[in-house]
Amino acid sequence: MKEELGERMKRIVPTGKAMILAYDQGFEHGPRDFLGNPESRKLEYILDIAKKGGFTGIVLHAGLAEKYQAGIRDSGIPLILKLNGKSELYTEEDPFSPQLYSVADALSLGASAVGYTVYSGSKHEDQMHKEFAQIIREAHQEGIPAIGWMYPRGKSLFDRKSSSKTFKIAQEEKEKEKSLAIDETPSIVAYGARIGLELGADLVKVKYTGSTDSFKWVVECASPTKVVMSGGEMIEDEEFLSKIKGALNAGAVGIAVGRNVWQRPEPMDITNKIHQIIFGS
Amino acid sequence: MKEELGERMKRIVPTGKAMILAYDQGFEHGPRDFLGNPESRKLEYILDIAKKGGFTGIVLHAGLAEKYQAGIRDSGIPLILKLNGKSELYTEEDPFSPQLYSVADALSLGASAVGYTVYSGSKHEDQMHKEFAQIIREAHQEGIPAIGWMYPRGKSLFDRKSSSKTFKIAQEEKEKEKSLAIDETPSIVAYGARIGLELGADLVKVKYTGSTDSFKWVVECASPTKVVMSGGEMIEDEEFLSKIKGALNAGAVGIAVGRNVWQRPEPMDITNKIHQIIFGS
Amino acid sequence: MKEELGERMKRIVPTGKAMILAYDQGFEHGPRDFLGNPESRKLEYILDIAKKGGFTGIVLHAGLAEKYQAGIRDSGIPLILKLNGKSELYTEEDPFSPQLYSVADALSLGASAVGYTVYSGSKHEDQMHKEFAQIIREAHQEGIPAIGWMYPRGKSLFDRKSSSKTFKIAQEEKEKEKSLAIDETPSIVAYGARIGLELGADLVKVKYTGSTDSFKWVVECASPTKVVMSGGEMIEDEEFLSKIKGALNAGAVGIAVGRNVWQRPEPMDITNKIHQIIFGS
Amino acid sequence: MKEELGERMKRIVPTGKAMILAYDQGFEHGPRDFLGNPESRKLEYILDIAKKGGFTGIVLHAGLAEKYQAGIRDSGIPLILKLNGKSELYTEEDPFSPQLYSVADALSLGASAVGYTVYSGSKHEDQMHKEFAQIIREAHQEGIPAIGWMYPRGKSLFDRKSSSKTFKIAQEEKEKEKSLAIDETPSIVAYGARIGLELGADLVKVKYTGSTDSFKWVVECASPTKVVMSGGEMIEDEEFLSKIKGALNAGAVGIAVGRNVWQRPEPMDITNKIHQIIFGS
Amino acid sequence: MKEELGERMKRIVPTGKAMILAYDQGFEHGPRDFLGNPESRKLEYILDIAKKGGFTGIVLHAGLAEKYQAGIRDSGIPLILKLNGKSELYTEEDPFSPQLYSVADALSLGASAVGYTVYSGSKHEDQMHKEFAQIIREAHQEGIPAIGWMYPRGKSLFDRKSSSKTFKIAQEEKEKEKSLAIDETPSIVAYGARIGLELGADLVKVKYTGSTDSFKWVVECASPTKVVMSGGEMIEDEEFLSKIKGALNAGAVGIAVGRNVWQRPEPMDITNKIHQIIFGS
Repeated sequence: MKEELGERMKRIVPTGKAMILAYDQGFEHGPRDFLGNPESRKLEYILDIAKKGGFTGIVLHAGLAEKYQAGIRDSGIPLILKLNGKSELYTEEDPFSPQLYSVADALSLGASAVGYTVYSGSKHEDQMHKEFAQIIREAHQEGIPAIGWMYPRGKSLFDRKSSSKTFKIAQEEKEKEKSLAIDETPSIVAYGARIGLELGADLVKVKYTGSTDSFKWVVECASPTKVVMSGGEMIEDEEFLSKIKGALNAGAVGIAVGRNVWQRPEPMDITNKIHQIIFGS
Repeated sequence: MKEELGERMKRIVPTGKAMILAYDQGFEHGPRDFLGNPESRKLEYILDIAKKGGFTGIVLHAGLAEKYQAGIRDSGIPLILKLNGKSELYTEEDPFSPQLYSVADALSLGASAVGYTVYSGSKHEDQMHKEFAQIIREAHQEGIPAIGWMYPRGKSLFDRKSSSKTFKIAQEEKEKEKSLAIDETPSIVAYGARIGLELGADLVKVKYTGSTDSFKWVVECASPTKVVMSGGEMIEDEEFLSKIKGALNAGAVGIAVGRNVWQRPEPMDITNKIHQIIFGS
Repeated sequence: MKEELGERMKRIVPTGKAMILAYDQGFEHGPRDFLGNPESRKLEYILDIAKKGGFTGIVLHAGLAEKYQAGIRDSGIPLILKLNGKSELYTEEDPFSPQLYSVADALSLGASAVGYTVYSGSKHEDQMHKEFAQIIREAHQEGIPAIGWMYPRGKSLFDRKSSSKTFKIAQEEKEKEKSLAIDETPSIVAYGARIGLELGADLVKVKYTGSTDSFKWVVECASPTKVVMSGGEMIEDEEFLSKIKGALNAGAVGIAVGRNVWQRPEPMDITNKIHQIIFGS
Repeated sequence: MKEELGERMKRIVPTGKAMILAYDQGFEHGPRDFLGNPESRKLEYILDIAKKGGFTGIVLHAGLAEKYQAGIRDSGIPLILKLNGKSELYTEEDPFSPQLYSVADALSLGASAVGYTVYSGSKHEDQMHKEFAQIIREAHQEGIPAIGWMYPRGKSLFDRKSSSKTFKIAQEEKEKEKSLAIDETPSIVAYGARIGLELGADLVKVKYTGSTDSFKWVVECASPTKVVMSGGEMIEDEEFLSKIKGALNAGAVGIAVGRNVWQRPEPMDITNKIHQIIFGS
Repeated sequence: MKEELGERMKRIVPTGKAMILAYDQGFEHGPRDFLGNPESRKLEYILDIAKKGGFTGIVLHAGLAEKYQAGIRDSGIPLILKLNGKSELYTEEDPFSPQLYSVADALSLGASAVGYTVYSGSKHEDQMHKEFAQIIREAHQEGIPAIGWMYPRGKSLFDRKSSSKTFKIAQEEKEKEKSLAIDETPSIVAYGARIGLELGADLVKVKYTGSTDSFKWVVECASPTKVVMSGGEMIEDEEFLSKIKGALNAGAVGIAVGRNVWQRPEPMDITNKIHQIIFGS
């Protein structure tokens, strides 16, 4: 199955670079993410962006993947089936995102990769580490790559009396670089990325740490697992593009972006700029 | 199995419109729902309404579905087996409604669809999302449609300090339109409907949001998953019929109604009016 | 398997009437129930009563059912294997009684029916509803009837601020008829019985509601599932016999009695009187 | 398999009497139990006592049972594999002792019986009742006896406001006989023993209740399940031997003893005396 | 499979002595462990140390084991697949480390042994004891040794009012030898080691107890399960080497060391000294 794994991986990272369109926000944040650009609520609209923009993957839950299976296949955009998810209707400091679909579901829906979010640091990290570990084992047996959304989160991260040395270092980092949230500090992001490697992910999606220098450490700690930067919520063009450049310079293979593309009234503008940065054309 | 799925779906939504008779209240609310019209405690009575009224589906738990299997088959009314349920004897702010029967049970009882209630926003949403996701996967493999009762509920929805942006918007909506309960605001209802789409439901049942305009957003966020309006507790004829019109104008394919039919002493009156609105005859 | 189900059901309810001897108290209450009549600790003694008294079923846990399998078979008394149980050594306001044996165990022990206690209203009702639902599905597939001990219980029932309408009605009922415990009010008992029907039980065992009139509602809400009155703790002969008459007049098919028989020094006296009331001879 | 069950049972209770050497304390209490007689830490030493002393069974966890499999087989001492266990490093008022090995493991290790501890009265009694019930079912199918360590325990037992009648009686018993701990009162011990019978155990190990008279009730409530007295912590020779006599006079088939043998510097002295009492030689 | 078990065990403990390189810290502590010697973040670097240093095993999670499978095989260093793990991002007084991979995964990755951490004393010890017990059973059936990281931990260990006798003794030991942490006292360490034996581990990794004399008790309580000393966090050369000598003199078969080797800028210096102590060359 090694061969199939490599072939599928090549669809997502065809020239060593990846540009992934994230579209699981309907589940994670709900329709409020579509309010600014209501067209974005439709997969047809999103798929059109993906095709025109030269994206190398699209992230979907099983519902959309199944209902638009023919359209996705015809578009040629590799499907990344997101295997877990949670809504923002339940707000817990220690999040848990349960596995909803299986690797077999992903294969039967024609996926080229499976995705899973891991909230290390949550009191439910045990369940997510276990689920993702088993997904990776099964995915590799079946010859399909596994991508980790590595997002350390939970009450522990804000526990100032914590005995964890990682937190002490993260707080020092945050004091030096005040604009960073605690889960954007190099120590925390690198830890999440490393767990991806340790568990066997083929690619991890992580938050940007604010600078090429610090993000290099993240990339190195994940290596040979590949790294893509997470797009996050919509920000100014320039700031966003500068983050992408920073991440790529640090060794990231690309980005996974959603809102920063399809929440803009003219998504192709930014898409073309991103493509230029990543693929040089 | 795609073909069978389509055929069964056509039984529930034969002309693109659906008129479903809900009768799981004996479990959800208990016999107190039958006090006003004691005849309503009997399935024979309910089935008679369904037949005379031209309903396109009847929602039952396994007990009634099994004990009246011959009668239901003879009636020609498509059976929707409700796969989960809870009693109101246990009152929890964060409800959980566990799966009681399997997709295989539904098929062996002759069902044309399976139903499942999802309380997104409850601290148990993880279990319900997971159960419903797996039910949908299995149902579609077996060629039977899956219907979601998408009812966001739970303590989180009333948490005024919540960091969730959906809640902030919902509270603004409620301030504008005071008659709405928080789980009837467009943001909350649309979120529930969208989760149905993301998970892969073929049809979702949701609360009405008070106006055609706002309900249109719900329908659009669920599309291409079809939407029926939930009947809810008994209200005046006129008010009820006006809600149905509003929902249909917004793009809903019909309603799922129980108490507003069989709690009335003369259920056929309202039934005929509903039929007229939905099917135009 | 339908035929076998009917045949086995006929053993328990041979002439449309049932007289069941309950003997799971050694687990539920422990040996303190045997103190008044120490002979009652022995199954030989109990089996002898069952035979002489013309009981149509005996309720046992797997231990006694197995160790006395030959004797039970020879006695001709149909065995009802109680599939769940709990001790009174752990005292919780929200009880949970877990499934201990399977339907297959019951069949291999020669049982004619399986029994299961459901504490709807407990915070663990989800687990019990699920277990009983699955037991019923499997039992019916294997052609063996399922009997529900439907006992609403738990902290919720005493929550005076509860939003549940059932509780409001139950409290009104209790105020009218002060001698009733909250779990003996018609609303609560009828709800428990109805859940038995909704889940698919063939027979439910419920508490008496104090009058023929109110118990009629219970029987009607459970119909076509059959109803037997629970014997409960030992009371005066006359009072007990009067309750049985009340239940039968309301449509119950009989009773399931334990302590009110074998805790008396002369169990055959009351047994013969019960037999006379139920079977008319 | 009935025949094999009988044959294996006969190894443990060869002449209707049993003398079992308990050696699971390394797990339950840890090495502190070996401090007084350090040689007792070695299975070779223990096995030597078992052989010389004519024990009819030795209780071990899987680790020792496997590493000394040849030696145990050669010794001819029947192996009783203890299937669950917990350490005293975690101290909880409501203990849970999880199943660690399966009935199949026991058979493959050459065991003649399986053992399991049940803490009825703990808030985890549901899990232990369930596990033991299923172990007994499986053991009997495979033709191997099941022995229950029936030890009611947990916070409930000390709840003076408890509604449980068993506790009221137990407290009265304790007031009459002040030297008894609450879990040594006849009501509590008899309840534990009875649960063993109800679940189907072939033999139960229980605490002594202080007198032949009260222990007779325990034996009667467990019958036909056989009863052995638990040795417990080291006490004076005379007191210990007098307890054994009391238990045997009450109908117990023997004892299961550990510390009272191998914690003594000269274990064979007491062993020979015990053998004399049980087997009369 | 006994033969294969012996052969694989011989790879890890070839001459009766073991020198194991631990490299699961990327998961357990995160990249902060690599900050002092950044090269240590790379498996190539670690594998090079292992080869040059004559290590008899290397401990990895599945991700690294899979991605470097060819390199590990070529190196000849036996692979020990660590089957469970947790991050320090979630900080709980009662730790739980869930099983992430199976024995079958280990075999398919070419492992010569499997490892598992047991936090006896944690309120989750039940799950870890159960998982490790089952891993050992399966490992031995498949002919692969099981190694236990036996680390008593949890709130209970610091409960001064505890009824556990082990804690009383441990506190006395700590008062005599103030430099010891509570989980380094002979009673606690020996208890952990003993649980390894009782469950069936082939080798246990434990903390050093500060002296040869006290560590001898640990080794004796674990026997015939073999014991290696845990390296722990980086300390001075002399102190570290003296601990190793102490452990070996007490009967340990070697050490499992990570940070004390690869956190040093010149790891081969200490490695050669360790090798000299263990293998005499």
